[in-house]
Amino acid sequence: MHDPRRFRMTVEYDGTDFVGWQLQPSGRSVQGTLEEAAERLFGSATRVHGAGRTDTGVHARGQVAHFDAATRLDPHTIGRALNAVLPADVSVRDLAVTSADFHARFSASSREYAYSLTQQRTSLHRRDRWIVYARLEHRRIQEAAALLPGTRDFTSFSKFSPTVDHCTCHMYETAWMVREESCVFTLRANRFLKGMVRALVGGLVLVGRGRMTVGQFGDILEAKDRAFTPMLAPPHGLVLTAVNYDPEDFAMMKGIISELRAGMRDDEDEES
Amino acid sequence: MHDPRRFRMTVEYDGTDFVGWQLQPSGRSVQGTLEEAAERLFGSATRVHGAGRTDTGVHARGQVAHFDAATRLDPHTIGRALNAVLPADVSVRDLAVTSADFHARFSASSREYAYSLTQQRTSLHRRDRWIVYARLEHRRIQEAAALLPGTRDFTSFSKFSPTVDHCTCHMYETAWMVREESCVFTLRANRFLKGMVRALVGGLVLVGRGRMTVGQFGDILEAKDRAFTPMLAPPHGLVLTAVNYDPEDFAMMKGIISELRAGMRDDEDEES
Repeated sequence: MHDPRRFRMTVEYDGTDFVGWQLQPSGRSVQGTLEEAAERLFGSATRVHGAGRTDTGVHARGQVAHFDAATRLDPHTIGRALNAVLPADVSVRDLAVTSADFHARFSASSREYAYSLTQQRTSLHRRDRWIVYARLEHRRIQEAAALLPGTRDFTSFSKFSPTVDHCTCHMYETAWMVREESCVFTLRANRFLKGMVRALVGGLVLVGRGRMTVGQFGDILEAKDRAFTPMLAPPHGLVLTAVNYDPEDFAMMKGIISELRAGMRDDEDEES
Repeated sequence: MHDPRRFRMTVEYDGTDFVGWQLQPSGRSVQGTLEEAAERLFGSATRVHGAGRTDTGVHARGQVAHFDAATRLDPHTIGRALNAVLPADVSVRDLAVTSADFHARFSASSREYAYSLTQQRTSLHRRDRWIVYARLEHRRIQEAAALLPGTRDFTSFSKFSPTVDHCTCHMYETAWMVREESCVFTLRANRFLKGMVRALVGGLVLVGRGRMTVGQFGDILEAKDRAFTPMLAPPHGLVLTAVNYDPEDFAMMKGIISELRAGMRDDEDEES
């Protein structure tokens, strides 16, 4: 028997037919699917920890996960063997040995999401873009998106979660990019709350349609009150694109948030 | 009753669940699906003519089609109404009135196709990229692709078709572009033969894997013999991206090809 080692992998999945990342009492989860594949490969139950708990129907291009295994197989072989048993809608990309203190979720310094929408009916992208037929004023959306960067309480743009004790996130950057009839909203933050990206997109689309002013969008953010949460954009437009592990960013965030709050828990990502 | 008018539309489809563009004795075709939708809307059988007869499993972003209808509905309403009855995997994009002598297939001056492949397993693009794990020498592929432009006989890169009387095509341009682990091969020609893009990609991949030299690829082209047709790349990497209607190009092609051949038939597109 070998000593167990910790492995880190990047995972891509098409969220269409999953109940989300996290194991559920019933339904097909990405975590459960990866754990089954690992159990088949290693012959023993293997817990797989992910960086972001993406919601039902949300995709990932750059989810990061880790697991421990006592195996003599090299990482390249493990990656190939996992892919050989995984269904087509989950793919292991890079897989490498990592240090025993690496934690996919708790060591992450930031996460990146992209939300795609299109203004025209599409067949080729019907599984990964939200179709919004209403005319959008992109300049106003960009003004509202520019209010988000900084350390803020995003309670108004989140669903309640019993496991989260504060709603402060540090938003590093946001961008609303328009190309022909499609738009992509990208965000990077130290953590994301449950439903957060989809609620932000829901609010931004209201701004773009003229149903809400940029000022009202800012007021909702300031209110820190779920009574004002906009309707969530549908999950299929959302992709977890990357998880970053920058020790400097990580230390800085710890500092900022410790100053703001006493007794905070470890950072975590509650989907989006 | 109104006089019939001719309408031209751009059509996008996900070819995964179709037997191809063309009506078949059995199976779900894109043409048949559009004709059913038109019949439901106009109350009478409506023939829909497409520019390119894409094969089973091939997608389209910019297929062009025309049909005649005696209706008082305006084009915008017709487009919306067709989309309302079409299944999610076919979408009408622009729809406009056109002249009575416009023919989606016979008036087209050129067609553009794109073939996508990736060198890494993918879940999000499993329906629209061919996964090629073998290492590819892209520079050699690019040399081979550069042999294609010009007026040439592409017999060696086509499947037999009883309705085609010559295999001369004018290839305007080709490009093999690499971005991270993905490649896209784009081509523009006055016409394409049955299986042509997929046979070209099959051959180029053999060149990239070192199974065939650039010189041998050129020899196959010169041979004008189906005995040398390379294995076809799978259809799901292929997309018909655009059909162009440039009267000057069209006249030039007629000239070139008339010089080369006497008694040629109208240009046509036999998939790819």
